Amino acid sequence: MAKVSIPDEVTAIANDIKNMKIRGAGKIARAAAKGLLIAANEYKNGMLENFLSYMNHVADILKNTRPTAVSLFNAISYVLSRLEKSKNYIKSVDEAKLIVVRAANMFIEYSLNAVEIIGEIGSKRISNGDVLLTHCNSSAAIAIMQKAHLQGKNIKVYATETRPKFQGHITARALARAGIEVTLIPDTAVRLVMRKVDKVLVGADTVAANGAVINKIGTSVIALAAKEANVNFFVAAETYKFSPTTVIGELVVIEERDPKEVVPESYIKQLGDSIQL
Amino acid sequence: MAKVSIPDEVTAIANDIKNMKIRGAGKIARAAAKGLLIAANEYKNGMLENFLSYMNHVADILKNTRPTAVSLFNAISYVLSRLEKSKNYIKSVDEAKLIVVRAANMFIEYSLNAVEIIGEIGSKRISNGDVLLTHCNSSAAIAIMQKAHLQGKNIKVYATETRPKFQGHITARALARAGIEVTLIPDTAVRLVMRKVDKVLVGADTVAANGAVINKIGTSVIALAAKEANVNFFVAAETYKFSPTTVIGELVVIEERDPKEVVPESYIKQLGDSIQL
Amino acid sequence: MAKVSIPDEVTAIANDIKNMKIRGAGKIARAAAKGLLIAANEYKNGMLENFLSYMNHVADILKNTRPTAVSLFNAISYVLSRLEKSKNYIKSVDEAKLIVVRAANMFIEYSLNAVEIIGEIGSKRISNGDVLLTHCNSSAAIAIMQKAHLQGKNIKVYATETRPKFQGHITARALARAGIEVTLIPDTAVRLVMRKVDKVLVGADTVAANGAVINKIGTSVIALAAKEANVNFFVAAETYKFSPTTVIGELVVIEERDPKEVVPESYIKQLGDSIQL
Amino acid sequence: MAKVSIPDEVTAIANDIKNMKIRGAGKIARAAAKGLLIAANEYKNGMLENFLSYMNHVADILKNTRPTAVSLFNAISYVLSRLEKSKNYIKSVDEAKLIVVRAANMFIEYSLNAVEIIGEIGSKRISNGDVLLTHCNSSAAIAIMQKAHLQGKNIKVYATETRPKFQGHITARALARAGIEVTLIPDTAVRLVMRKVDKVLVGADTVAANGAVINKIGTSVIALAAKEANVNFFVAAETYKFSPTTVIGELVVIEERDPKEVVPESYIKQLGDSIQL
Amino acid sequence: MAKVSIPDEVTAIANDIKNMKIRGAGKIARAAAKGLLIAANEYKNGMLENFLSYMNHVADILKNTRPTAVSLFNAISYVLSRLEKSKNYIKSVDEAKLIVVRAANMFIEYSLNAVEIIGEIGSKRISNGDVLLTHCNSSAAIAIMQKAHLQGKNIKVYATETRPKFQGHITARALARAGIEVTLIPDTAVRLVMRKVDKVLVGADTVAANGAVINKIGTSVIALAAKEANVNFFVAAETYKFSPTTVIGELVVIEERDPKEVVPESYIKQLGDSIQL
Amino acid sequence: MAKVSIPDEVTAIANDIKNMKIRGAGKIARAAAKGLLIAANEYKNGMLENFLSYMNHVADILKNTRPTAVSLFNAISYVLSRLEKSKNYIKSVDEAKLIVVRAANMFIEYSLNAVEIIGEIGSKRISNGDVLLTHCNSSAAIAIMQKAHLQGKNIKVYATETRPKFQGHITARALARAGIEVTLIPDTAVRLVMRKVDKVLVGADTVAANGAVINKIGTSVIALAAKEANVNFFVAAETYKFSPTTVIGELVVIEERDPKEVVPESYIKQLGDSIQL
Repeated sequence: MAKVSIPDEVTAIANDIKNMKIRGAGKIARAAAKGLLIAANEYKNGMLENFLSYMNHVADILKNTRPTAVSLFNAISYVLSRLEKSKNYIKSVDEAKLIVVRAANMFIEYSLNAVEIIGEIGSKRISNGDVLLTHCNSSAAIAIMQKAHLQGKNIKVYATETRPKFQGHITARALARAGIEVTLIPDTAVRLVMRKVDKVLVGADTVAANGAVINKIGTSVIALAAKEANVNFFVAAETYKFSPTTVIGELVVIEERDPKEVVPESYIKQLGDSIQL
Repeated sequence: MAKVSIPDEVTAIANDIKNMKIRGAGKIARAAAKGLLIAANEYKNGMLENFLSYMNHVADILKNTRPTAVSLFNAISYVLSRLEKSKNYIKSVDEAKLIVVRAANMFIEYSLNAVEIIGEIGSKRISNGDVLLTHCNSSAAIAIMQKAHLQGKNIKVYATETRPKFQGHITARALARAGIEVTLIPDTAVRLVMRKVDKVLVGADTVAANGAVINKIGTSVIALAAKEANVNFFVAAETYKFSPTTVIGELVVIEERDPKEVVPESYIKQLGDSIQL
Repeated sequence: MAKVSIPDEVTAIANDIKNMKIRGAGKIARAAAKGLLIAANEYKNGMLENFLSYMNHVADILKNTRPTAVSLFNAISYVLSRLEKSKNYIKSVDEAKLIVVRAANMFIEYSLNAVEIIGEIGSKRISNGDVLLTHCNSSAAIAIMQKAHLQGKNIKVYATETRPKFQGHITARALARAGIEVTLIPDTAVRLVMRKVDKVLVGADTVAANGAVINKIGTSVIALAAKEANVNFFVAAETYKFSPTTVIGELVVIEERDPKEVVPESYIKQLGDSIQL
Repeated sequence: MAKVSIPDEVTAIANDIKNMKIRGAGKIARAAAKGLLIAANEYKNGMLENFLSYMNHVADILKNTRPTAVSLFNAISYVLSRLEKSKNYIKSVDEAKLIVVRAANMFIEYSLNAVEIIGEIGSKRISNGDVLLTHCNSSAAIAIMQKAHLQGKNIKVYATETRPKFQGHITARALARAGIEVTLIPDTAVRLVMRKVDKVLVGADTVAANGAVINKIGTSVIALAAKEANVNFFVAAETYKFSPTTVIGELVVIEERDPKEVVPESYIKQLGDSIQL
Repeated sequence: MAKVSIPDEVTAIANDIKNMKIRGAGKIARAAAKGLLIAANEYKNGMLENFLSYMNHVADILKNTRPTAVSLFNAISYVLSRLEKSKNYIKSVDEAKLIVVRAANMFIEYSLNAVEIIGEIGSKRISNGDVLLTHCNSSAAIAIMQKAHLQGKNIKVYATETRPKFQGHITARALARAGIEVTLIPDTAVRLVMRKVDKVLVGADTVAANGAVINKIGTSVIALAAKEANVNFFVAAETYKFSPTTVIGELVVIEERDPKEVVPESYIKQLGDSIQL
Repeated sequence: MAKVSIPDEVTAIANDIKNMKIRGAGKIARAAAKGLLIAANEYKNGMLENFLSYMNHVADILKNTRPTAVSLFNAISYVLSRLEKSKNYIKSVDEAKLIVVRAANMFIEYSLNAVEIIGEIGSKRISNGDVLLTHCNSSAAIAIMQKAHLQGKNIKVYATETRPKFQGHITARALARAGIEVTLIPDTAVRLVMRKVDKVLVGADTVAANGAVINKIGTSVIALAAKEANVNFFVAAETYKFSPTTVIGELVVIEERDPKEVVPESYIKQLGDSIQL
C-alpha cells in the first residue's frame, strides 16, 4: 500500500496512549474511538476504494500503542466492524465517514454511561445491612457501592490493602469520603473476615469467552475464600472488557511487573542472586 | 497465705518476660523453667509443708507476666506436675528441691533440642526437587528446610512477605543466607504459585485439643489454597505449643494488635471516623 | 391521560385474581391473557392512536392484582410485546385488535399445552425401575411421573410431607391414585432416603436469569442432599416462570407467610414474646 | 448353674425399665447401677466363688430389659468390670460387695453430674451474640444453652420443630421459659436459616467407635447444611452414649417406628396399599 | 408413497456404513453427505413436488444403517435442512438439486477441515513444557498435540492403555512417531500421575445439549481425578458430535459390548454362570 | 563383634524369603518369627550376656532379605521387643530362650488367626443385598466376603481386573468358586459401576502412622470414585501391616516394577526411546 498520511491529532492520541498519559481501560477505549472519528473526518483522498484500508491503517497504529489492552481493541472493533459490514452498500466517501463518526460517538457515549449503568444494575443486588468486601481499586465496583449508599442502604465495606501497590488505600479513601463505613484489612485477613461478609464485589481487567475473569493478583484467592464460605462473588465489568480472541482459544496474556514493587531495591541487592521475587 | 519472699533473680526473669526482653515461645518457656529452678534452690524456709505453696506462688507470678503465652504455662506445668505427683512420697525439702531442679533442667534441655528434632523428623518429608511455600517466620519450619538443604536435597522456597509486619522478609533472608533458593511473594499471590508448590510448611503459635492450629494471620487462607490444590500442608510445632485447657472446651484467645501496623497514623487521621482497620 | 373505561368482564377477572379465586401460576396467566383479549375486542374508541395506551392501562390494572406473580407479568408481556413491535406498521384499529386477539389465544393454547409437553419431555429422563423423590406439589413434576408411569415404566416415588402446609399429602394422593407406588416421608428424612433415590423432581415458582430456581421452602436442602449423593436433580417449569427483570439485576421477592402455618396460635400465646417463628 | 434367687427390688427395677416406666438414657443407666448395688447387698449365699456368677446373672436380667439401650450396657459394664479386674485379689464376700457398691455409687454420681459438666464445658464454646440451631430435644444441648445464658451471653436459638413427633416444641418451650430468645422453624427451613447461624448444637443417641453419631432423624441433613455453610456442629453427649461393641465392627441398630407418627391412620386407609410411609 | 428407485451407488454407500467398511464419525458423516449428493444428481423424475420426499426417503435409508451414530444424523440434517428451508422459494428441480449439492459439498469440506481447525485452536491452550494426559484414541486430541509439537512446544504425554481394547497403544504409537515423548500407563495409574499433569485432552463420541460428554469408558474417572487435582480437562470434538435430540430430553444411548473384550472366552467358560462381565 | 554362627535352618529361611519362595506379608512374617525361635533354641554359647547381641544379629540377617517388607520388620520387632524389655530381669539363658520361643509362637498363632478375625469383624459391616467392589487380590478382603456369604447374606461383587498383572482374575475366581456372584470389570469402569456399589473392600500393603494406606496401584482412584459417590470404603489389614517408622516421619518406599508388566517387550522395541512406561 502507498504511504498514507495520518492526521497529527491522531498521532498525538496514539502517543498519549503509548506513554500512558491516557490510561485506564475506559479512557483508552474512548481515546481510540475518538482517534478513528478524527481520522475519518480528516480523510482527504476522495477515493471511496481507499477509505477502508486507510481506516485499517489508522486502527493498526492505535492498536500497536498497547497491544495487550483489550478495551482498545474492542473500541476499534466496535467502530470498524460497522464500516466493514456496510462496505458493499456505501456509495460515497461522505456516507462512509458518517458511519465511522456515528459509531465512534455511540461507542464514546456508551462507554461513558457504562459505569453508571453498572452502578444502577449492581446496586439492586446490595441489600440494606450488607457487609461487602472489595479488592484493589475498581471504578465499577465503587460505583455499585456508592449507588447502594445513595439509595439509603446501610453498608459496611472491607477493602483489602492490595499488595504490592496498595491500590486498596485509594478505594478505602474513595468509599470513606462518600460516607461509607470502610475497614482496610491486610490481604492475609481475607479468610478471617469472610465469615462476616455478605458479598464480594470486584472489577475485572479482562473477561474470557469461557467466563474466566482476569483481575489484580489476589482476586482468585479471595474468590476461593468466598466460595468456601458460600459468599456471593460479583464481578462488575464493562462489556469492552470481554476478550473476543479467547473464543478461538487464545489465552489472555498476564502482565509481569517489576520486583521493586514488592521489596525495596536495597533489600534485593543485599541478598544477591539466591533470592527472587 | 503469709507473704512469701521471692528471690530477686526470679523477679528479674518475670520482669523480662513481661517487658518482652525475653520473647519467643521457646525462650519464654525456658526462662520460666529456670525461674522455678532458682526459686527452688533459693528456698530458705526449711519447712517441707510450705514448699509446695511457695512454688505455686512463684508459678503464679511467672504466669501473670504473659497470661496468653501457652509455652509459659506448659513449662511451669511440666515442672510443677512432677512435684505435685510426688508430694506424698517426698520426705525432705532437699528431695523436693531436687525434683524441681531435675524437671526444670530436663525441660530446658528438651526445649533446646526440640527445634533440632523437628528439623530431623520434618526433613524426611522433604524430597529432592521439592518446591515449598512458607508463611511468616517459624524457626521450626526453617529448621526443616535447612536440614533438608544440608542433606543435599535441592529445594526452592516461596516465602510470603506476611503483611502486616513483613516477617517473611526475615525468613527469606535466613533461607537465602543458608544457600537455599527463595522467592519472596506478596501474600496475594499464594493461590497463583500454589500450582507449582509441592508442600507448604508453617509453624504454629498454639495447637488446640481438637487439632486446630492457631498461627499468624494469613495461614488459614494459605491452608485453603493448599487444600484446593491438593498440596500437603505441614505444621511444625514443639509439643509445648499444645494448649491443655482446650481439652475442657476453652477457646484460644487471639491477640488483636494496633491498626498502625497496617497503615501509617497519618492515613488514619486524614480519613476520620468512617475508616477502620 | 383521559379516563379510560374498562370492560366489566376485565374488571371481574382482575378482581378474581386479586381475591385468589383464580390461583395457580398457569390459571392466572391465562386469565390475564383472556382479559387483554376481551379488552381489545371491547375497545370502542375508534382512534388507533389511543389503542396502545388503552391496552397498557388494562395491563397495569391486571398487573396490580398480584404484583409478585411472575406468570401474570409474562402473559401480559407476551401479548403486548407483539402489539408494541408492530405499532409502526399497523394501519387500523381492527388490525391492532387482531394482533392482540391472536397473541392472547396463542398464549392460552401454549400455556394449556405446557404441562403436557413438560410431561412428554421430562418422562424421557425417567428410566424403568427409577426411584424418585419429589417435594411439595408441582403439576409439572406430577405430569412427568404420570407420563412415565403410563409409558409402562415401573417407578417408585418418595414424596416429602412438605411442612408447614403438608402439600406433599396432595402429591402423594395424586400419585397413588394414578397407580404409582408412593412413600410419604417427613422432610427430616431426605438425606436418609437419598441413597436409594435415582432422581429428584421438583417444580419451580420462579426461574431467575442466572439459572437460580425459587421454589417452596425445603427445596434447597433437598438439592444439597441430592448434590452430596450425586443424584440428578430436575426442575420442571413452564417458560413463563422465568423472571425477565432478573436480567437487569432485580432480585426475586420471597413471600413471607403467617407463623400460624407452623404452630397453633395457642402455642404462641402461651410462650409470650421470646418465641418467634 | 443352679437357680439363683434375685431380690424382688431388682426384679421391680428390671420390670420398670422394660415397661418404660423408667426411660431416658441417663435414668435407665442409673437404675441399672442401683439394681446391681441392691443385688450385691442382698447376696445371701456366703460363698465368694458364687458371687461373680450371681452378679453376672443379675446383669443379664437387667440387660435383657432393653437390649438396644447403650447406656444400660455401659452402666453395667462400668460396675462389673471393676469387680472382674479385682477378682484375683478379693478375699471375702464383703470385700466383693464393697467393690460393687462403690462402683455403682460412683457411676450414679458421675451420671447425675454429667449433664451439668457438659453444660459447663460446652458453654465455653458459646460466644456472646451467637445464633444457635438445635434439633429435637436434648438435655445436654439445652444445658449448654442455659449455662451460656446464665453466664450473661446474649444468644438466639433456632429450634427445628422436629417432625414427625415435634420434640422441638418441647425444646423451644424450655428455652423460652429460661428467658432465651427462640425461633421455632419447620425442618424444611434449615438451609435457609443456616447462613445466620453461628453454631449447631445437638445431642446424641449413640456414639460409635469411628466417631459416627446416631441421633434423631433429620440430624444428618442439618449436619450437611452446616458443613456446606462452614458452621461449627457440636454434638453434646455423656460418655455412656458410647457403644463399645462398635469397636469390633458391630453396627448400631436403628429403631423403626410406626407410620402413624407421620400421618393419621385415616389418611393411610383412604389410599390403600400403594402408599407407604 | 409410490416405490422410489435409489441409485446403486447410494445403496452401496449405505451398505458400507452398515457393514462398517466405512467407520469413524467423520468418515460416516462425509459418506452420508456424498450419498445425498449422488441421489440428488441422479434424480430422474422431473417433478419438483416429488423431490423432497425422494430425498427424505434416501435420508431414511442412510440413517437406518447406524441408528445411534450421531454424526450420520447431523450430516443428513445439515444438508436436508437447507433444502427444507428453501422449499417455498425453489422454482425448478435443477435449483433444488443445486441446493443439495452445494450443502453436501460444504459439509464434506467443513468436515475435512474440522480436525485441522481443532488442532489449530486447541494448540493455543498448550504451553511449552506442558505434561498432558490423553485417554483412548482421538484424532482431534492427537491433532492438538501434534500441532503444539510442530509449533516447537516441548510437551510430554501420558497415554492410558485404555482397557479393554487397548486403543491407547495406537495413540502412543502415533504420538511417538510424531516425535512426541509419550509414556504409556495402565488405566489404574491415572490418579498417581495426575499430580504431574498440566492438562488432560480427550475426544468425544457425543456431546449432549446440557454439555454432557459421552466418551470411551474410563473417561469419567479421569475427569474426576483431574477435577480433584485442579487439572484443566479439554474435550476436543467436531460440532457434528452434538446430539440435537438431547435438547428435547432424549438420553444418549450407550453401546454395550461383548464380554470377550475383557477376558478370554476360556476364562468365562471355566467359571460358569456365577461370573459376569 | 566376634563372628557368630547362625543355624543352617535359619539361613535357609532367610534365603527362601530373599528368593521369594516364601512370599505374601503373612507368610514372610511367620517365617521370620520361626527363624528367631529356631535361632534361640539353637543358641549354643551358654553366656547370657551374648544372647541379646546374637539374637539381634539373626534379626539383621532376616531383615536384610526384604528391606521394604513391613510385616517382616514387625514380626521381628514383636519378638525381640519382649526380650529387650525383660533383659534386666532375666537370670539365665534358658529364661531368655523361653521368652523368645513364647513370643515367636504367640506371633505365629496370632498371625494365623488374623485373617479369620478380620473376616469375622469385617463381615458385620456387610448387609444382606450389598453390592461390593474389590480391587486386586487381598486375602483379608476375600475372607470378609466369604464370611458374609457363609452367614447367608446375599452379596454381589464387582472385581476389577487390576492391570497390569490382572490379580483381579484370581480374586474373581476365588469368589465365584465360593458361590458368590462376581462381575469382572476393566479398571476403567470403576466410576460407572460405583453408583450401584454399596461398599468398597480392599486390602493394604502398608498402613502409615497418619492413617495413610499404601496398596496396589489403582486403589487411590477407586477411593476417589467411592468418596465422590459417598460409598463406604473399607481397608482390611492385619496389624503387622502398620509401619512404625512412619511415626518419626519416614515415608513408605513404593516399589517400581518392570515396564514389561504393562506392554510386551516387542511393543517397546518397535517404538524406540521416545516411549516410556
